[in-house]
Amino acid sequence: MEQMLIEEGTRFLELKDKRDAQWARIAESAEWFKYTLGGDYDRRFYAIYLIETYHYVKHNPKHQALVATRMDEMPVHYMKFCYEHAEEETGHELMAFHDLLNLGVSIEAKDLPAPLASTQILISYLYNISETGNPLRRLGYSFWAEDSYQYIQSVLGMLTKTLSLTNKHTSFLVSHSTIDQKHSQEIEEMLNKFCQTDEDWESIGEVLEITLRLQSDMMNQVVDEYDKLINGAPSRYSFLNTYLA
Amino acid sequence: MEQMLIEEGTRFLELKDKRDAQWARIAESAEWFKYTLGGDYDRRFYAIYLIETYHYVKHNPKHQALVATRMDEMPVHYMKFCYEHAEEETGHELMAFHDLLNLGVSIEAKDLPAPLASTQILISYLYNISETGNPLRRLGYSFWAEDSYQYIQSVLGMLTKTLSLTNKHTSFLVSHSTIDQKHSQEIEEMLNKFCQTDEDWESIGEVLEITLRLQSDMMNQVVDEYDKLINGAPSRYSFLNTYLA
Amino acid sequence: MEQMLIEEGTRFLELKDKRDAQWARIAESAEWFKYTLGGDYDRRFYAIYLIETYHYVKHNPKHQALVATRMDEMPVHYMKFCYEHAEEETGHELMAFHDLLNLGVSIEAKDLPAPLASTQILISYLYNISETGNPLRRLGYSFWAEDSYQYIQSVLGMLTKTLSLTNKHTSFLVSHSTIDQKHSQEIEEMLNKFCQTDEDWESIGEVLEITLRLQSDMMNQVVDEYDKLINGAPSRYSFLNTYLA
Amino acid sequence: MEQMLIEEGTRFLELKDKRDAQWARIAESAEWFKYTLGGDYDRRFYAIYLIETYHYVKHNPKHQALVATRMDEMPVHYMKFCYEHAEEETGHELMAFHDLLNLGVSIEAKDLPAPLASTQILISYLYNISETGNPLRRLGYSFWAEDSYQYIQSVLGMLTKTLSLTNKHTSFLVSHSTIDQKHSQEIEEMLNKFCQTDEDWESIGEVLEITLRLQSDMMNQVVDEYDKLINGAPSRYSFLNTYLA
Repeated sequence: MEQMLIEEGTRFLELKDKRDAQWARIAESAEWFKYTLGGDYDRRFYAIYLIETYHYVKHNPKHQALVATRMDEMPVHYMKFCYEHAEEETGHELMAFHDLLNLGVSIEAKDLPAPLASTQILISYLYNISETGNPLRRLGYSFWAEDSYQYIQSVLGMLTKTLSLTNKHTSFLVSHSTIDQKHSQEIEEMLNKFCQTDEDWESIGEVLEITLRLQSDMMNQVVDEYDKLINGAPSRYSFLNTYLA
Repeated sequence: MEQMLIEEGTRFLELKDKRDAQWARIAESAEWFKYTLGGDYDRRFYAIYLIETYHYVKHNPKHQALVATRMDEMPVHYMKFCYEHAEEETGHELMAFHDLLNLGVSIEAKDLPAPLASTQILISYLYNISETGNPLRRLGYSFWAEDSYQYIQSVLGMLTKTLSLTNKHTSFLVSHSTIDQKHSQEIEEMLNKFCQTDEDWESIGEVLEITLRLQSDMMNQVVDEYDKLINGAPSRYSFLNTYLA
Repeated sequence: MEQMLIEEGTRFLELKDKRDAQWARIAESAEWFKYTLGGDYDRRFYAIYLIETYHYVKHNPKHQALVATRMDEMPVHYMKFCYEHAEEETGHELMAFHDLLNLGVSIEAKDLPAPLASTQILISYLYNISETGNPLRRLGYSFWAEDSYQYIQSVLGMLTKTLSLTNKHTSFLVSHSTIDQKHSQEIEEMLNKFCQTDEDWESIGEVLEITLRLQSDMMNQVVDEYDKLINGAPSRYSFLNTYLA
Repeated sequence: MEQMLIEEGTRFLELKDKRDAQWARIAESAEWFKYTLGGDYDRRFYAIYLIETYHYVKHNPKHQALVATRMDEMPVHYMKFCYEHAEEETGHELMAFHDLLNLGVSIEAKDLPAPLASTQILISYLYNISETGNPLRRLGYSFWAEDSYQYIQSVLGMLTKTLSLTNKHTSFLVSHSTIDQKHSQEIEEMLNKFCQTDEDWESIGEVLEITLRLQSDMMNQVVDEYDKLINGAPSRYSFLNTYLA
């Protein structure tokens, strides 16, 4: 029994290592990471990020809840976690949206440009892993998404400084990371409580890697779209020029 | 504005009247109601009821959550209500199952006989109204299901007395009705907060009527199946004879 | 091998017997059957039937196709059958709708009254059995639905005579039964080819019984609604009076 | 009217141009394209491709059919096309699987390694665009997938020559492209018949671009995985060494 607990702990630490390693790769080589640290952008860059964030975050409660609507048998506590977590995630996209409004962008949510390809791909993948395969594997997404603050502090600092952002512009990024403290503990609990087989841990590790990469792809496309916008190329974000250029 | 509030109240009272009227019809003419009050049955009758209850209650959190996973725009508070309510309903089928075990029936949940036709029909309809049509309409089900204690007191009293049931046999029926006090207030709040159009109230009223009727159909089939069982006809419940006959 | 073929044949014959027996019960005691043979009604009765038929038939291709979109492994030929059958059923609701127009009822499909409770229940159940449980069991619905002509000839004759209906009013009922000759052979083939276990045959038999009963319930409600309409009670079909009374 | 036809033709030609342009980019810069033309690989490279093809092709009929199971109103002919196309695509993954067997790899389909990340992402995106958004947009996938032969001839030639492949090894790639001639004509018909708004054409164009890119990503990962395999890195494909190294 003790042996089992130790083993569970080992697996959990491996998962943490995997997360650290992937963030290290991002910090080292992801375009968006260097770009944001570079500090050579205006608020339109952040606005594009907020819009894409609005889009994908809106689906988080939905695919979270879908995990627990499958016909398969599932532990009652894991089902409860899924619904509770879905409830807590509901409406978080509005934080990103209000941050956007507080930047001075005057728009209604329904008039926002459609999500970018990379954002759609992230959303699609999250639905797919929530609806099929190992029901625990979505925890691999929550595992990094609810606990990213430590990895993006430098980026967040530079962004805030460069764009003179205050709390009212960063409610999603900053406040979200506080709220998520609780979630991240629950996720650790869920992982240690429900993951029992190698397949559980491997499928969770895979989802961790893929979703963090897809999120990073989204960030890279945000950079690309900002480049296009400031260089006068046709852009779904050109309306931002009215408010922020 | 005040006018609007009064109107909402009127609609809500109409819904209550509809519920009262339908329960009155059930009390007057439903076979299962009279049968249960008649007191001429043994614990197998109650066991069959618990098995069917296990089956349909198991799906309650799932279709409840599905309401808030649709792609349509939905108010944040209503989404939260759906997830929270789903969480609270999770595992309630286990109450019915434990009541069954406490009757002395020794069986694993996975070995229970498949749901009766009428139970399947109730389940199917609840999925359908949760996944399609007016997203508020599932409230018509919760509206009676979370507040049925007052209507079935006489039935419950006779059942308890006839079968010498104690708390450990009636956790679903009795405890559930206490837990649901909170739900039934929330449901009233949701109704008054979100229902705005005639269509909202009508579709909720329709779901109230249909689901209460389907539940009553299920109860009638429980009576029929009990009759078959005690008369020696082939029955999916014949295993109950080992424990309760 | 030969033994197996004989066994399959036995099961298929049992299924036929089950269908015969249930139609015999309907012919003997279902209200709608007697009512239709009674001949005391006008075209509004048939119009209500056509409207409800439009509603449930519209979903037939959808739930048929859904059978083959599950994640479970399924034989290639059965998947092909599901898609092909879905294709062939597509648009059949328009036959019922054109029959209605040809009765002189001038309406657009989108303005038809919503389906009755019993029609919704039939639709819900068909989605449920198509999406969950034994993937073969939907064949139990097709088995009677594609081969009902022989059982309703007397009813159809009286209806046609009483209401002076010609081919242009009965395209759904009459033409459909011809088209379905081919389907009913395919369904027999599918049954004999794919059903291998007792559970397969039993779940198909159960779906046969339940869906035929739910269809019969729908027909009974058509009678009830017609009664209400001619007696001046509030009715979703009162617009028919303009065209047919 | 004539004007409209010309306009439709223009849009269709633009779509063709988009496809040509994207394939040109792939031919110029995609790693897998150059790698395959390079001719420096053995049959394990092709085997990995066949395995991933098996995985994503298996889902093609399912998401194709799902387009026509939505609750929205849809033209009857487009629904029929979806079901018919789903039927025709059913079982095509078995061609890829038999090609694999004919290479000498002795394995059962259920024992194949799980799909790669890029393959899962392609599959997820295809489900998402089939179940949500503009119902016509999946045509953007079929538009290139059913008519790729012309773009990959050089690649196919080199692959066949390098690995001494005969017809029995290339049934998916070669035969599929012949079967698809008919589909590609139907798809052109569907596009010209049903696309009416700018949004229709744009969402189809977007799906064309994204799915072709995701497919190309999958091909690139096939190259990477082959590299890992021949370099002795841990690999889900190491079982191939037994048969093909």
